[in-house]
Amino acid sequence: MIDIRDRVRNKELQSKIVSAEEAAAYIKPNMNVATSGFTPSGYVKAVPTALAKRMEKEPFKINLWTGASTGIEEDGALAKVNGINVRMPYQTNKELRNRVNSGDVEYIDMHLSESAQFARYGYMGGGIDVAIVEACAITEEGNIIPTTSLGNSASYVQQADVVIVEVNTTQPLELEGMHDIYVPLDPPHRLPIPIVKPNDRIGTPYIPCSPDKIKFIVPCDIKDHTRPLGEIDDCAKAMSSHIIELLNNEIKEGRMPANLLPLQSGVGNVANAVIHGFVESDLKDLSVYTEVIQDGMFDLIDAGKLSFASGTAFSPSPEGLDRFYKNIKEYRKHLMLRPEEISNSPEVARRIGVIAMNTAIECDIYGNVNSTHIMGTKMMNGIGGSGDFARNAYLTIFCTGSTAKGGAISSIVPFCSHIDHTEHDVDIIVTEQGLADLRGLSPRQRAKVIIEKCAHPDYKPMLLDYYERAVTATKNAQTPHIISEALSWHEKFVETGSMK
Amino acid sequence: MIDIRDRVRNKELQSKIVSAEEAAAYIKPNMNVATSGFTPSGYVKAVPTALAKRMEKEPFKINLWTGASTGIEEDGALAKVNGINVRMPYQTNKELRNRVNSGDVEYIDMHLSESAQFARYGYMGGGIDVAIVEACAITEEGNIIPTTSLGNSASYVQQADVVIVEVNTTQPLELEGMHDIYVPLDPPHRLPIPIVKPNDRIGTPYIPCSPDKIKFIVPCDIKDHTRPLGEIDDCAKAMSSHIIELLNNEIKEGRMPANLLPLQSGVGNVANAVIHGFVESDLKDLSVYTEVIQDGMFDLIDAGKLSFASGTAFSPSPEGLDRFYKNIKEYRKHLMLRPEEISNSPEVARRIGVIAMNTAIECDIYGNVNSTHIMGTKMMNGIGGSGDFARNAYLTIFCTGSTAKGGAISSIVPFCSHIDHTEHDVDIIVTEQGLADLRGLSPRQRAKVIIEKCAHPDYKPMLLDYYERAVTATKNAQTPHIISEALSWHEKFVETGSMK
Repeated sequence: MIDIRDRVRNKELQSKIVSAEEAAAYIKPNMNVATSGFTPSGYVKAVPTALAKRMEKEPFKINLWTGASTGIEEDGALAKVNGINVRMPYQTNKELRNRVNSGDVEYIDMHLSESAQFARYGYMGGGIDVAIVEACAITEEGNIIPTTSLGNSASYVQQADVVIVEVNTTQPLELEGMHDIYVPLDPPHRLPIPIVKPNDRIGTPYIPCSPDKIKFIVPCDIKDHTRPLGEIDDCAKAMSSHIIELLNNEIKEGRMPANLLPLQSGVGNVANAVIHGFVESDLKDLSVYTEVIQDGMFDLIDAGKLSFASGTAFSPSPEGLDRFYKNIKEYRKHLMLRPEEISNSPEVARRIGVIAMNTAIECDIYGNVNSTHIMGTKMMNGIGGSGDFARNAYLTIFCTGSTAKGGAISSIVPFCSHIDHTEHDVDIIVTEQGLADLRGLSPRQRAKVIIEKCAHPDYKPMLLDYYERAVTATKNAQTPHIISEALSWHEKFVETGSMK
Repeated sequence: MIDIRDRVRNKELQSKIVSAEEAAAYIKPNMNVATSGFTPSGYVKAVPTALAKRMEKEPFKINLWTGASTGIEEDGALAKVNGINVRMPYQTNKELRNRVNSGDVEYIDMHLSESAQFARYGYMGGGIDVAIVEACAITEEGNIIPTTSLGNSASYVQQADVVIVEVNTTQPLELEGMHDIYVPLDPPHRLPIPIVKPNDRIGTPYIPCSPDKIKFIVPCDIKDHTRPLGEIDDCAKAMSSHIIELLNNEIKEGRMPANLLPLQSGVGNVANAVIHGFVESDLKDLSVYTEVIQDGMFDLIDAGKLSFASGTAFSPSPEGLDRFYKNIKEYRKHLMLRPEEISNSPEVARRIGVIAMNTAIECDIYGNVNSTHIMGTKMMNGIGGSGDFARNAYLTIFCTGSTAKGGAISSIVPFCSHIDHTEHDVDIIVTEQGLADLRGLSPRQRAKVIIEKCAHPDYKPMLLDYYERAVTATKNAQTPHIISEALSWHEKFVETGSMK
């Protein structure tokens, strides 16, 4: 067993150091198990690996509540042995996704800002039997120093009957001090969250925890299994340049300050391309108030363009993680992690006025957005924090390539097959074809702009034809639709493999 | 002309008293005109009546931004003469609705909490050429004392080039002191809204305005043209009793304090029935944080059950208005009006933890809600504040009769024909048939509960049949749907006049 005694600063707690197997043996069938983890960062690794092994021989299920998605040693391992009953609030793991869609897992896909309070309010069915959180270290007082993500860990530790801490020796001790932990009181006692700019510090650098509550401490030396970053392709580059052009114009028109407003961007290729666009732009003194801090942020810091970034997880690529660890003394001046109910707080997002950039699976001609379901039925990942930001942003942007599956799918459709963000919440839609600015437009005006600017040329005539026939057919309609045809594009794809 | 000099306390301003016709003559084609009014309360009456008369002879259009819906002398009169180009953010008037659906009016249907800032951010296209607001009186400093609604008046006055004040002598001077006016700064300067309970006073009792900005003052003696309240029918009674039972159970289970949390309820019959249910219940020391204060609130005050109600409009029935005026000295101890960006603030709603009760047009079996469109195409009223509250409430309830049009329409459908509130935002669905508690359930679990508890017996077998066939057909689906049939119920209604 790895020696973690120097990271367990409370001497008495050192007697609670056990193996992962011993800790996993504590977990009983149907327990509500709440863990750290937000993206494949700061999730627990040793205990779920041991638990999955146990489940292989002795099949049972637990309910698993996390910050968001986790890595292969947690969601992957437990899904593989069919060990999860209820899962909330987000996932991205392939094996888990299959279990979700097959019905083995009851997946509660929710706004991330609401997940901790949803559990605290007692809405998930019962309390938390055991919280398992990854830590850099435990202080002399028993307080927990988190690692590369915060997610819901602080609230889960506060609520749990019992806490298991995985002390991960691959996580550098320089992470200590990079967290700002604040768990709001519940109504009717809640107070304003006193953040007015991304770098405001409002809480403690540790998760408060009494030593008595800690049942087991488990050593772990498995690194965050983060995901490689995709190449920035031409499609992402085109979207990025449309967005940068828009933002420059907002500054020119006096609708944004010269250093913009705090940026929020979803995870992935397009977000990465947009951030790269900023690195190459004339913009400076930028700030970020987002969920996930990825490689691009390090580029912005290195370029001297980022004053501060607040998130709830560091989720760089494997190379980005090495780079982060190596330069952590410099990067920690510019970065902070908060609980996701603060990083994604509607209150804070609206107050500071974030620029929200998130990815859509499909958009319809009236500006509704599907972020979660393939062809209206199959879960992809989940809504995540997109709704927290999209609803409350100063400017709400959704990006999507105009087609998918080599052109067989149009991402601009007559009617979304599932709706996660309504027409009331979307300001801007961007594809590689162009940018539709929907602000102040009625649905009929929006349809024309979205088709004109965003649709792929292969689908533009079909969309225009649908829209024009819908106008004629309905005569009196705020939102013209031929109801019998509204979902026919998806139907056609399911039947023929193409929307064409 | 009525003598309003005693209500215009600034002597110099008395020289600006003119007729409605004179003031209306100031308005030019294509101007952005922003007015007071939220429900048929506190809207402007004399100037739009005169303007509509002028438009009859000299046809032109203006863009009309208000607090929400207004009365017949404003929306009604201007719609009749086809005098509106762009209209935001909400409407309920029949003539206007026809203009919206026919395409004569570009209607921007938006979350009410966002409407003032949307205008301030410059997203509506240009600034406000003229603000017209109804007042009880003008102070010696030129500040404006509003009447029975606040809506967006304060922000509009602040933004406008020119202000026209309609001093309405039917509005009692005792309204003075019942308003709490606070306009947030815009990002990056915005601060926390310092409200932690419904009766917190954070602003001024008047709309700050420099006398120079006031161009005209127009006398008016037309009363608010409020709407009669419908009879509480058996359907509304049944829904009310399901809700009261739920809330009592929440208290019993320790998920709510004994005096509940602040109530928010939409406008109309069901809301009224629920409030009546509270009057007859054992609950006491209730508080309200809502948009619209209706007759039921007076009943709650008279029954000694309401500690405080905060809203943005008093919108009682005609009899209720008389009752309010008559007892205003007592009622004013318990009531306060705020700007709608405060009454509907997501920040405040989530912090104080409102219980949100709003009406749906239809709900689907997975918990999505349509609040706005008939058969997916025709605008009814608009989303109003339902999204502000539903997204941020402690508990989110949507009510609807299980059928409409004498049974020809099922309000529970396979797939909503328009979605305003997504599955992520809805905790409880109530019909007269029963109550579906969706908290912590996956879509497949939700479908079973919604069909079982909420569907009308005539439609229950059809819904179950759809759901079960969808499960079989999709096999792997978080949200089972037969895409080719998902909207077939609406299609059938459009073709045959019945969903049966």
